[in-house]
Amino acid sequence: MDKYTLFTPGPVDVPDEVLKESGASLIYHREAKFADLYRAVAQGLQKIMYSSGKIFLFASSGTGGMEAACANILARGDIPVVAVCGKFGERWQELCTMYGFDPVTIKADCGKAIPPEKLESALQKTKKPAVVFTTLAETSTGVLNDIKAFGEITKKHGAILVVDGVAGIGADYCPQDDWHVDILVGASQKALMTPPGVAFIAVNDRASQKMQKCDLPRYYFNLQIYEKFLNKQQTPWTPAITILYALRRGIELILKKGLEQNFQLHREVAEYVRGRVKKMELEIFSEHPSNALTVVKMPEGITSTDIIGEVKEKHGILFANGQGEMRGKILRIGHMGNYTIKKMAGALDALEEVYNRRRQ
Amino acid sequence: MDKYTLFTPGPVDVPDEVLKESGASLIYHREAKFADLYRAVAQGLQKIMYSSGKIFLFASSGTGGMEAACANILARGDIPVVAVCGKFGERWQELCTMYGFDPVTIKADCGKAIPPEKLESALQKTKKPAVVFTTLAETSTGVLNDIKAFGEITKKHGAILVVDGVAGIGADYCPQDDWHVDILVGASQKALMTPPGVAFIAVNDRASQKMQKCDLPRYYFNLQIYEKFLNKQQTPWTPAITILYALRRGIELILKKGLEQNFQLHREVAEYVRGRVKKMELEIFSEHPSNALTVVKMPEGITSTDIIGEVKEKHGILFANGQGEMRGKILRIGHMGNYTIKKMAGALDALEEVYNRRRQ
Repeated sequence: MDKYTLFTPGPVDVPDEVLKESGASLIYHREAKFADLYRAVAQGLQKIMYSSGKIFLFASSGTGGMEAACANILARGDIPVVAVCGKFGERWQELCTMYGFDPVTIKADCGKAIPPEKLESALQKTKKPAVVFTTLAETSTGVLNDIKAFGEITKKHGAILVVDGVAGIGADYCPQDDWHVDILVGASQKALMTPPGVAFIAVNDRASQKMQKCDLPRYYFNLQIYEKFLNKQQTPWTPAITILYALRRGIELILKKGLEQNFQLHREVAEYVRGRVKKMELEIFSEHPSNALTVVKMPEGITSTDIIGEVKEKHGILFANGQGEMRGKILRIGHMGNYTIKKMAGALDALEEVYNRRRQ
Repeated sequence: MDKYTLFTPGPVDVPDEVLKESGASLIYHREAKFADLYRAVAQGLQKIMYSSGKIFLFASSGTGGMEAACANILARGDIPVVAVCGKFGERWQELCTMYGFDPVTIKADCGKAIPPEKLESALQKTKKPAVVFTTLAETSTGVLNDIKAFGEITKKHGAILVVDGVAGIGADYCPQDDWHVDILVGASQKALMTPPGVAFIAVNDRASQKMQKCDLPRYYFNLQIYEKFLNKQQTPWTPAITILYALRRGIELILKKGLEQNFQLHREVAEYVRGRVKKMELEIFSEHPSNALTVVKMPEGITSTDIIGEVKEKHGILFANGQGEMRGKILRIGHMGNYTIKKMAGALDALEEVYNRRRQ
């Protein structure tokens, strides 16, 4: 089937009214109309993240947002502590290493969330100023981490907490202010139901102050340059204007539904998907799953690559494969954003039909 | 007037059929359909740039493409030679400085093109491996540089030539292979008639080999990571999929028109605009103007800020102001991409009406 609907954990299936916005004609980014757009997006993001932080918008993917966080918060002499439970946690490690740091790494067992005790013990041993990097919803494994506990621990130790919320924001509850997250990173193409091309970070006062001392080489993502444009509600470089139109609309849809209702819907959809997967006698890969996606472990002898190919071909439904060494071994079902139980039911019927025939 | 049409030098007024593409539903970036999209865009860009180089695509603005070029081509011990004739040339200086280099800078007088002799003499004095950074069409002043001469000089001296073609590509003729440009940087939102959000660079074999030795800290724009995905026609991070749909269409429109015809149209439109400006007894800011935009010098006592505001308010037409210390002193008229003599006539009538009344 040439045309397929995305049930992938980003990009996601974007509602028509959001797509329509992204096809609207252009405004100029040094004009009042752009400042209005910036303001609407930033204020909306603050609500969704329960954040009073400064919002920086980037024309980039989520990884760009992660680089912006990393390259602006670290200063020579800091110790990065990276809490990893999958591919996206490893990205923090790679970023810190690329910038010349030797991060302390704490790891979860495969498919498990990172135990907060491990962070506690790592910070107890760390003598210098520490910056903790971790992941809200780890898209490679479907794991949700206990950011609330991480926030309490980092605060107690006077460390900075940076959270990759790219896949989780809008699907998994993570109130930045209350949970003491100093920098929260997100992107347009996940639960905010928008095409990819915009990343954002919310920076609280503590992080903002620490950033003044940053001395790493950076330019496109240099927040000291962005700061100069922030009071005008502009960006230093040409922003992804049409993606921001779409993001504004995606945010409006969430706020119209209500924040609590939106989290509740994600919870219900996720529970439904997990229930269906278990009924198929398949195993959920993660013990502590995110509500943004469900990762299914494939039994011996059946590869997700075959299943995904056939479901796409026969039913026009696309799931995602595992990444790296997990390719073929897991199947990832995205349900962040514009998904309902009814939509998931159709996708899971397709999966069930193909899987049942193949396992016989 | 709340709704206005852009006559700004990027973003530009985007044709409806290109906008429509950017509102199409999403595909997955790890799928064959995305590889087809990447291939179509890359092959089209090669044609427009007369390039046999490798094409790297970024979810970023043009400045991101400049950073990708700079941070991947320079290695410790190199001497960057930056040829500057405005704001965007200064951006190369800032990039090189941020990465810890002390660039040799050659400058043009205000509003003039960079004399190739200055580059020749700078390269004669440079003992270490040199990388030359310069600008095709300098959007801050409307100047077009003599990239052909620069290419001959850098080649003779065994130096590498990196050209910011963001504003010029598709409007000003600049054949990468023939003119010995080692890295050519571009972006979606200029003469390619596409919304902002995608940058690209074309890298030839010489530059590609030199890049293997790069040792600067970089991640989001690290081409060694991009290289691993290039043979699959993918990007390491989530690409700006809908902007790439639009870019594919923008490129198709240019190729359908014919490359020669497209350059010819830009030439004719630019000549028409310059003629109209002179008839108004206004001065063209640049002695060697680009065909992508026309920069007009304001006479004493009249600021471009007022003119731009009134033309927008009364006629729904938006021109751009000068940047930095040039604000109020010049008026910038974009005509790269989807502009014709008829469209420019209307915009210039509006300008003339407002200007004539104000100068009385």
